[in-house]
Amino acid sequence: MKEWRMPLFYTIKLNLKLNLEKRMDGKMLKTLDKIKSVEDLKALDLDELQVLAKEIRQFLVQSLARTGGHLASNLGVVELTLALHYIFDSPKDKMVWDVGHQAYVHKILTGRRKGFKTLRKIDGMSGFPKRKESEHDAFETGHSSTSISAALGMAVARDLKGEDSHVIAIIGDGALTGGMAYEAMNNAGRGHTNLIVILNDNEMSISENVGGMSRHLNHLRSNKDYLRAKEDIEGLLNKVPVVGSQLVDVVRKTKEGVKTVLVENTLFEEMGFTYLGPIDGHNMNDLIEILNNAKAMEGPVLIHVKTLKGKGYRPAVENPSAYHGVGPFDFKSGELPKKSNAYTFSDAFGYAMVSLGEKDDHILGITAAMSDGTGLSHFERQFPKRFFDVGIAEQHAVTFAAGLASSGYKPVFAVYSSFLQRAYDQVLHDVALQNLPVVFGIDRAGLVGEDGATHQGIFDIAFLSNIPNMTILSVKMPEEMESALKYAFSLNSPVAIRYPRGTVTLDKKYQLPYTDGKMVTLEEGEKIALLATGKMVAQALEMKKLLEEEGINVAVIEAPCIVPVDEQGLESITSQYPTIFTMEDHVLKDGFGAQIAQWMMLHGKNNVFYSFAYETGIVEHGDIPSLLEKEKLSNHHMITKIKEMTKKERA
Amino acid sequence: MKEWRMPLFYTIKLNLKLNLEKRMDGKMLKTLDKIKSVEDLKALDLDELQVLAKEIRQFLVQSLARTGGHLASNLGVVELTLALHYIFDSPKDKMVWDVGHQAYVHKILTGRRKGFKTLRKIDGMSGFPKRKESEHDAFETGHSSTSISAALGMAVARDLKGEDSHVIAIIGDGALTGGMAYEAMNNAGRGHTNLIVILNDNEMSISENVGGMSRHLNHLRSNKDYLRAKEDIEGLLNKVPVVGSQLVDVVRKTKEGVKTVLVENTLFEEMGFTYLGPIDGHNMNDLIEILNNAKAMEGPVLIHVKTLKGKGYRPAVENPSAYHGVGPFDFKSGELPKKSNAYTFSDAFGYAMVSLGEKDDHILGITAAMSDGTGLSHFERQFPKRFFDVGIAEQHAVTFAAGLASSGYKPVFAVYSSFLQRAYDQVLHDVALQNLPVVFGIDRAGLVGEDGATHQGIFDIAFLSNIPNMTILSVKMPEEMESALKYAFSLNSPVAIRYPRGTVTLDKKYQLPYTDGKMVTLEEGEKIALLATGKMVAQALEMKKLLEEEGINVAVIEAPCIVPVDEQGLESITSQYPTIFTMEDHVLKDGFGAQIAQWMMLHGKNNVFYSFAYETGIVEHGDIPSLLEKEKLSNHHMITKIKEMTKKERA
Repeated sequence: MKEWRMPLFYTIKLNLKLNLEKRMDGKMLKTLDKIKSVEDLKALDLDELQVLAKEIRQFLVQSLARTGGHLASNLGVVELTLALHYIFDSPKDKMVWDVGHQAYVHKILTGRRKGFKTLRKIDGMSGFPKRKESEHDAFETGHSSTSISAALGMAVARDLKGEDSHVIAIIGDGALTGGMAYEAMNNAGRGHTNLIVILNDNEMSISENVGGMSRHLNHLRSNKDYLRAKEDIEGLLNKVPVVGSQLVDVVRKTKEGVKTVLVENTLFEEMGFTYLGPIDGHNMNDLIEILNNAKAMEGPVLIHVKTLKGKGYRPAVENPSAYHGVGPFDFKSGELPKKSNAYTFSDAFGYAMVSLGEKDDHILGITAAMSDGTGLSHFERQFPKRFFDVGIAEQHAVTFAAGLASSGYKPVFAVYSSFLQRAYDQVLHDVALQNLPVVFGIDRAGLVGEDGATHQGIFDIAFLSNIPNMTILSVKMPEEMESALKYAFSLNSPVAIRYPRGTVTLDKKYQLPYTDGKMVTLEEGEKIALLATGKMVAQALEMKKLLEEEGINVAVIEAPCIVPVDEQGLESITSQYPTIFTMEDHVLKDGFGAQIAQWMMLHGKNNVFYSFAYETGIVEHGDIPSLLEKEKLSNHHMITKIKEMTKKERA
Repeated sequence: MKEWRMPLFYTIKLNLKLNLEKRMDGKMLKTLDKIKSVEDLKALDLDELQVLAKEIRQFLVQSLARTGGHLASNLGVVELTLALHYIFDSPKDKMVWDVGHQAYVHKILTGRRKGFKTLRKIDGMSGFPKRKESEHDAFETGHSSTSISAALGMAVARDLKGEDSHVIAIIGDGALTGGMAYEAMNNAGRGHTNLIVILNDNEMSISENVGGMSRHLNHLRSNKDYLRAKEDIEGLLNKVPVVGSQLVDVVRKTKEGVKTVLVENTLFEEMGFTYLGPIDGHNMNDLIEILNNAKAMEGPVLIHVKTLKGKGYRPAVENPSAYHGVGPFDFKSGELPKKSNAYTFSDAFGYAMVSLGEKDDHILGITAAMSDGTGLSHFERQFPKRFFDVGIAEQHAVTFAAGLASSGYKPVFAVYSSFLQRAYDQVLHDVALQNLPVVFGIDRAGLVGEDGATHQGIFDIAFLSNIPNMTILSVKMPEEMESALKYAFSLNSPVAIRYPRGTVTLDKKYQLPYTDGKMVTLEEGEKIALLATGKMVAQALEMKKLLEEEGINVAVIEAPCIVPVDEQGLESITSQYPTIFTMEDHVLKDGFGAQIAQWMMLHGKNNVFYSFAYETGIVEHGDIPSLLEKEKLSNHHMITKIKEMTKKERA
C-alpha cells in the first residue's frame, strides 16, 4: 500500500466557494500550470490540492464559457477526480467514467488541458473519454450504466494476468436506474474480484431521479456523514449471539453498532458489495482517506460520494439543468445565451402531444429521464397523471408502454434515437410481435453533432426496419409533427416517428398532411429524382435550386414513410426517372436508401441509383455542417456526385 | 374482498408425490374433467384442489410424454397456478408469466386442455402465452425478465381507468438476474400502484443461478418458512425510539421484531416492495392464504414462493435440466429418448473453443445462463477460470466482454441469436465503436422451431449488419467451426459467427477453410446462381440436384462472410450469372439478400434477382420442415419460383 503523505485526520476545511468575478481576469493558474501529467499531481500536499481544485474550477468555467460543453457535472467532480488521481496510478490503475461527460477534470490532469480550446469541435478533443486520445482513457463511454460491466471485465483481466492494479468505475446516481448497472453489480457482488465503484451521488440525473433506488439513496444520504469501514461492522455483528438476553447485552454495549445495522443495511451490501459512505465529495481529506481505505480492501467496494452539481460556480449550482450542457456563455454574469426562439422538433412534438392529448385522454407520455430534452415536459405539465418518467431505463420504458397499450391506451415513448438502441429487443419482442400500438417519438434522429459517435442517432432506421409490424415515419419540418402523430395513432400498431435535433425552416407550401404515408413530389424535374426523407428534404430542395443554376432540373420527392416502402410510389418514380438519388440523415447500411435498393432489385428496376448517407456509421464530434462536409454530404459534395453520375445521360 | 371458502389454517398436508406408474394407465382424471373454465375451479374445496393438483401432474406427464414440451417448470407451479386462479379472477385480474414456458397449468385451467394434443406443433397450441389463444393470456412472453414492466403498465392502466382489479407478474429467480426486472422493480417500488409480483424461486435457472441476487435469495431461503405481513414489522419498527436505553427496552420486549430486522431487511423492501415469504409453493393452504393477504394490501407486494422444479415426477426432480424442455419420452420408466449422436453446431463450437483455448490462454468463454445449450460447457470443464456465466444478463455479458477485450483478452460470448437482441446497444456502443475484438458465437441463428416467434433467430444479420467494424460469418456445417473461430480471432475486431440449431450433414468436399471470407463456388452451373449462406447452402445443393433432373443447371455459391460483402466475388458472380437467387435462414428485411441487393443497386448491376427469406419476420411455432413449407422456403416452393423467374431466359 502506498504510504500516506499527510495525517489521516487533517482537519483544515477550506471554503471552496470561488469568487470568480474577482479572481478570474488575467490571473495565472499557478498550481494548475505545474500539472503536466498525473505524476506532477502526486507531488502536491493537501493545501496545494485545494488550491488546484479552485484553479481547475476557474479554468473549467473560463474555458467552457468560450467553447460550451458539460459544465455542471464536471464542477461537481473536481475534488473526486483529484483524489482519484492522487491515490491511484493511472494508466496502470484504470478508471471508467460512466456516461463520460464528467471526465473533463480527468482530461485536464492527464495532459489534455490544451485540448479544451477545441473541445467538441471537429477533429478537436472529444467531450467523452477516447482511447485514442490518451492511455489514461481506459474505456470509451457515452450511454449510461455501462461502467461497472466494463470495469469488471478489466478487473477480471487483471486477475487472470496476475497483475496488481486497481479498477475504478465512477457512476452517477441517475445511471444506477439502468438495469445494466444492476446486472453488473450482481455479477461483481458474487465474487472476490477487487473492484471499486464510486457512486457519484449528486441527487440529480438530467431529469429528476426516480424509483426505489432513488428513495434508498435518499435514505442513506440522510445519515450523518461519516467514514466507516465495513470490517468494523462485521466484527460487531459476529459478536451478536442468537440468544435473546445476550443480544440485549450486546445491544447495550454497542448500541452504535446496532443502530448502524438497523439503518445501514444497504442494498449494495445485499448485492455483495462493501459499502463505504456516504461522504462529502468536496472534502478532499475525507476523499483521500476513504479511497486509501478502499484501495486496501478485498472484493467489490462501493463508495458513496455526495457531490454538488455546479459546485463552485453559483449560476451552475442554482440552475444545474441549464448548465448541464451549455453553449458559450458570459462567465462573469453567469448569463446564458438567450434560448433561440426557433420552434424545434422537440417543441413541436411536445405541443402536438398536448394538443392531441386534450382530445384523447388515452394518450400517455413516457420518457426515460429526458422530459425537457424531448419536449415532453409540455405534456408533463398539462397531464401529470398521464406522464411517466421511468429514469434511465429504456428497456422498462418500452415494455411498460407495451403493457399500457395491451390495456387499451396509446402510450408514446419520447426518446433520443441513440438511446432507443438499448431497447431493440423490447421493441421487437414486447411491442411488435404482439402488434401493440406504441408510438415512438424518436428525437435526435440523425447527426446530433458535438456529443459525437456514441450519440449520433444514425442507426434507428436500420434497427427498426427489420421489426415486424413496424411503421417508420419521418418528419421534415416541425409543423408536420401533429399531423404525423395523429396519423401514427390512427394506425393502431407500432409506429416510430423520427425527427432531428434542432429545427428545419421550410416554406409552408411544402408542409405535408400525414394521411397515408405515400411519397410526394415536392418539386417536378426531369430524368433525375432526389428521393429524400426527413431533414434531408430541405437539403434536396436547396440542391434543386443550385443544380438549376447549372441547367440541371431534378425532381424532389419526399418519402414521409420509410417503412413500409411505398410500392406504388416507387413504381411510378422508377418508371418516370431513370436516375434516382436517395438522401437520408442515417448510416448507409440498412437505412432508407437500402430499403429502396432492396425493393428495386426485387422488382427488377434498372434505374441508375445512388444513396447519400453516412458511410461507416462512425461520425465523431463536431458541428453538423462540418460533419456533413467531412462525410461528403454537404451540398457541393452531393452536387458533384450527381453531376458525375448523370454526365452521360445529360450529354 | 372475496369471502373465504375454507378455514385459514387448514392443516391437512397431503403427500403430493404421485405414484404415476400405478395410477396413470386408463385412469380417469375425474376432478380435472370437471374443470372447463376457471369458474369451475372456484367451486372446489381444498381437498378437491389437492386432488386436482395431482391430476394435473398426471395429465402433464402423460401429455408431454407424447408431445414433448417444458415439463419440469410446469410441474413446479401446479399449486401456485391453482391458487392464483382460485384467489384471483382472470381475465379481469391479469397474470403475466415471465418467459412463459411455465404457463401450461394456466392453459389447462383456462379451457385449453385439448390444445395439448397439438402443443408446439404447427398451427397448434403455443408453448407460451398467446393473446389470440385466450383472453386469459394478458401478455405474450418468451424472453426473460419482461413481466414486471408489462404488469406495471397494466396496473397503471387499471388505475387510470379507475377500475378495481389485480395484476400479477410471475417471475423466476433466474429471470431476476436480468436488468430489466430491476428497472421495473425500481419503478414499481417508487409508487403506490397495486401490483403483485410472485417470485417463483426454484433455486435454479436453466444454468446455475449466479450473482449477488442469488446469494441474497439463498439467505432468505435459509429462514424458516413463515407467513408474515409487512404491516406487523412496520408497526414494530415505528415503536423503536432513537434513544439508546429505550431501544434496549424495546429490544427486550420485541426481540423477535429486532431479529426480523437484523435478518430480513430484504433487497425487495429496499426497493419499495412489501416482501412476503418465503413460503412453500407446494402447500396449497399457505399459498391461498398469502395470496389472499396480498390481494388486500396496498402498493407493490413481492411474494417469495419456493417451488421444486419437476415436483411430483421423480425423474424430473432428479434431473430438472434434462426435463426442462423434453422431446417425447417414456413416462413410466422416465427414460428420455437417447440423445442423438449428431454432431451439432453447438458441440462443434464447444470443442473448437477447447481446442483453440488450449493453444491460446487469452481465449475466454462467456455465457448468459446457457452453458449447456451453447456447448460452452465443454470449455467450462476444461478452463473453469476462463469461463464466465453471468446469469440472464446479455447486456452485461457484452460490455463485460468489451472490458476484457480492452485489456488484451479474446472473449467469446456464446449466445442464442434471439437473446443477443437484448444487447444490440452494447454490441454497437461498447464493442464496435471501440473496435474491440469480441467474438460472438451466435447459436440458434435461423429458425429454432417449436419455441416459436419469440425464439426464432432470424433478426441477427439485420441488427448486426449496420454496426460499424462488424464482421458476420456464417457456418454451413459443424466441421467448419474451428476454422471459422480461428479466422474470427485473427481479425482482431468484432466478429459474429452465426450457426443454426441442430446439425447439417454435408459431404466433406464442401467443407471450407476460413481464410478470407471470400465467396466460393461449390458447384458450377449456367446462367443461374444460387447464392446461399449458412444452413441454406445444404438446401441449395439439394436443389441443384433436383433442378438438374429437370434440365436446369444452376451454380451453387456460398457466402461464408455476410458482412462485409465480398465485393470482388460479387463483381465476378454478377457478370457470370444473369440471374441470382439469394438464400438465407433469416428475415428478408436487412438480411443477407438485402446486403447483396444494396450492393448491386449501388454498383449498377442489372441481374435478375430474387431473395429467399422469411417474409414477415413472424414465424410461429412448429417443426422446422413444416415452417419452411409454410414460409414457402421448402425445396419445391423454391424450385417453382426459380423456374417461374427463369422461364423466359431458359426458353
